Amino acid sequence: MTTALPLNRISASDAAAAIAAGKLTSEALVAACLERIGQREDDVRAWAYIDPALALEQARRRDRETPKSRLHGIPVGIKDVIDTCDLPTEYGSPIYRGHRPACDAACVAQVRELGGIILGKTVSTEFATRHPGKTRNPRDLGHTPGGSSSGSAAAVADCMLPIAFGTQTSSSTIRPAAFCGVIGYKPTFNLVNRAGLKFLSESLDTIGALTRTIPDAALIVEELSGMPATSFAEVAALKPRIGFCRTPHWNQADAASRANLEHAAETLAAAGAMVRNVDLPAEFSALSETQVTVSSYEFFRALTHERTRFPQLISPGLTARIAAGGKVSRAQYEDGLTLATRCRIQIADVFREYDMLLAPSAPGEAPRGLDNTGDPIFGLMWTLLLLPCLTLPYGKGPAGLPLGVQLIGAHGGDAALFVHAEWARRALIE
Amino acid sequence: MTTALPLNRISASDAAAAIAAGKLTSEALVAACLERIGQREDDVRAWAYIDPALALEQARRRDRETPKSRLHGIPVGIKDVIDTCDLPTEYGSPIYRGHRPACDAACVAQVRELGGIILGKTVSTEFATRHPGKTRNPRDLGHTPGGSSSGSAAAVADCMLPIAFGTQTSSSTIRPAAFCGVIGYKPTFNLVNRAGLKFLSESLDTIGALTRTIPDAALIVEELSGMPATSFAEVAALKPRIGFCRTPHWNQADAASRANLEHAAETLAAAGAMVRNVDLPAEFSALSETQVTVSSYEFFRALTHERTRFPQLISPGLTARIAAGGKVSRAQYEDGLTLATRCRIQIADVFREYDMLLAPSAPGEAPRGLDNTGDPIFGLMWTLLLLPCLTLPYGKGPAGLPLGVQLIGAHGGDAALFVHAEWARRALIE
Repeated sequence: MTTALPLNRISASDAAAAIAAGKLTSEALVAACLERIGQREDDVRAWAYIDPALALEQARRRDRETPKSRLHGIPVGIKDVIDTCDLPTEYGSPIYRGHRPACDAACVAQVRELGGIILGKTVSTEFATRHPGKTRNPRDLGHTPGGSSSGSAAAVADCMLPIAFGTQTSSSTIRPAAFCGVIGYKPTFNLVNRAGLKFLSESLDTIGALTRTIPDAALIVEELSGMPATSFAEVAALKPRIGFCRTPHWNQADAASRANLEHAAETLAAAGAMVRNVDLPAEFSALSETQVTVSSYEFFRALTHERTRFPQLISPGLTARIAAGGKVSRAQYEDGLTLATRCRIQIADVFREYDMLLAPSAPGEAPRGLDNTGDPIFGLMWTLLLLPCLTLPYGKGPAGLPLGVQLIGAHGGDAALFVHAEWARRALIE
Repeated sequence: MTTALPLNRISASDAAAAIAAGKLTSEALVAACLERIGQREDDVRAWAYIDPALALEQARRRDRETPKSRLHGIPVGIKDVIDTCDLPTEYGSPIYRGHRPACDAACVAQVRELGGIILGKTVSTEFATRHPGKTRNPRDLGHTPGGSSSGSAAAVADCMLPIAFGTQTSSSTIRPAAFCGVIGYKPTFNLVNRAGLKFLSESLDTIGALTRTIPDAALIVEELSGMPATSFAEVAALKPRIGFCRTPHWNQADAASRANLEHAAETLAAAGAMVRNVDLPAEFSALSETQVTVSSYEFFRALTHERTRFPQLISPGLTARIAAGGKVSRAQYEDGLTLATRCRIQIADVFREYDMLLAPSAPGEAPRGLDNTGDPIFGLMWTLLLLPCLTLPYGKGPAGLPLGVQLIGAHGGDAALFVHAEWARRALIE
């Protein structure tokens, strides 16, 4: 280990190295995480379900085995829209109170196979949409943690564990990560297998990670997908070509966020990056609205069982969004997918000139209050484009809460995004 | 109704019109289907689970309602890899004996919402792969019905009901339909919502339909997706442009199938179609192998829970295929998807010149014996290309069992495929 941090604060990468070297037990690591949870959960409310005895028993079993991956002995949090066979899975909805799936989701079973510890289920908003769960922002308990990966972001930010799965259909990994001040990573669509994920919008739903370091975000997705392990050894020698993309929604970011992002661009340029403004083609302006069209057509269908049998147990906000989805015609949906396909081809050209784009993560810091999870506007377009996105904490808002900068990579260029984003992180923060 | 067929033999379209006109009750229709099942199920073994009382109760309830769609009162069979909340769902595997999901799959809940009757669960092979279930080919009980949609194809062929869902990852709708002598329709990828489908290969798995008429295949997918209803009124006036595509696997078709398809091409030309030979670009020859690479990478992951916890309950054949999938690297998988993307663009150009392609549905008639479900070779490429495919019964093999001809449409051109395929059906069969 390179740090003397308390065990609950060390990264998964460092912990895995220490476990592999025989210098740390999974049991000690998990116990430290559980202790932190015990101290803080009444305030933060990040967990939908946790079974400390079961987690410790898994850890002790791992400690008797030879490490088989970089996840060996590492506690992982599972967003509660992802099935677990030994813990309840409620999808953030009272419809599924106490529900126990028969089968682990693929990503959960893979974590187990790789030696990881399923620490518990983290709070999701209702079916990973916008209606909030019980979680509070650990940076200030009066503020939302963001959504829909609320519990995963809050738990990782509060050092209750090093890694938790998030999912993103709109901005559900990037936004809560930015609000809680951690790394949020939404991979390229189709990098982590989705069997056992409760679908909202199958063309867009993407499983990602909330972590406190970029190598940790890389680690879990690499292990699950079979991508080679990214080396961060040459990061210092990079000279990233960064496209500063204010997006068509720049005016929806508040003054502090806009100034913060301008400052980030200047700092990155001063550190040696090539930073140029990127204006997207005009038709990209329709992408965010199109994301709503496409996703709502799909969730009207995906949630048919729930909306027809339990309408009284669905929040008014989601009820209204479902009704709007039911009015989207197949032709409108297909037009939306056609636009998305066209823009995916055009954005690939942009990435011939840039290693990554720099854009807002959210319109501002985490809003005060717990009755909504904030605005997903700065995630919609990138999710519809299926691109890998990573948010870094950088700067503070007027209330002293974290701001984020979002870095977007080329389709399938997740490994390149990891190293360029790590370069940016060091330039901005170290 | 235009025919005086027994009720269990009439099409869904005719039945729906009669129900809407007050000339037929759903109860009478369902009772006729149940009677047929009672007579034949001991031989055919199409059903994984059926609850006659529950089906009749649904039908009586529908008879008290005003019809709300063209599925109102129509019995539908559900392949047993698709979740139902009121009937067991075993995915063709002993691992899930007696499993009862908490939630209907989207397509099941949609059928209910549209007024359809869930008649029961049809036999699937093991997780929709190749290890056979108990079903026999109703045309000759000593022959396989094909797979993986074995029960759906056999039940529809045996006039136990008019429509059943199939799924296809390789050739799991087209092959059993051809072997049993019915219509099999695999839509363009992403036409029917897949929430609640047990995933095998999420990039390829497609929900489709087994029916006895083309309008019935159109009907169910139109109702679920919100596509406009296809009119078949102008079919006789069509002059389809048909590309005769023997595929790179032509030599794997037996002599009877090759001669049958040549004869079909001549008959279609004689009836007024433009029929020309289509040779696909050289790199299309790798697509079938690539389908295996892509799907096995995915099912290695999708079935992690099962392969790690219940290896002794997985068939030797699937165990070997899973192991092979575990050896596919992420780079090989991505190379496969890249080739598929490139070929999808090229095949779009082919469809500028042709309304549909004509190709084999299977290497021959249904093989004798029940220990394997036949060779999926003639489905792999089209599934990987995400194209709509429809098989028509045409001709007989040496043992007197049905042969099929496969018609393939442009991506998203399902409605055009329906009418051109109906033109072809009339030219070939009427």
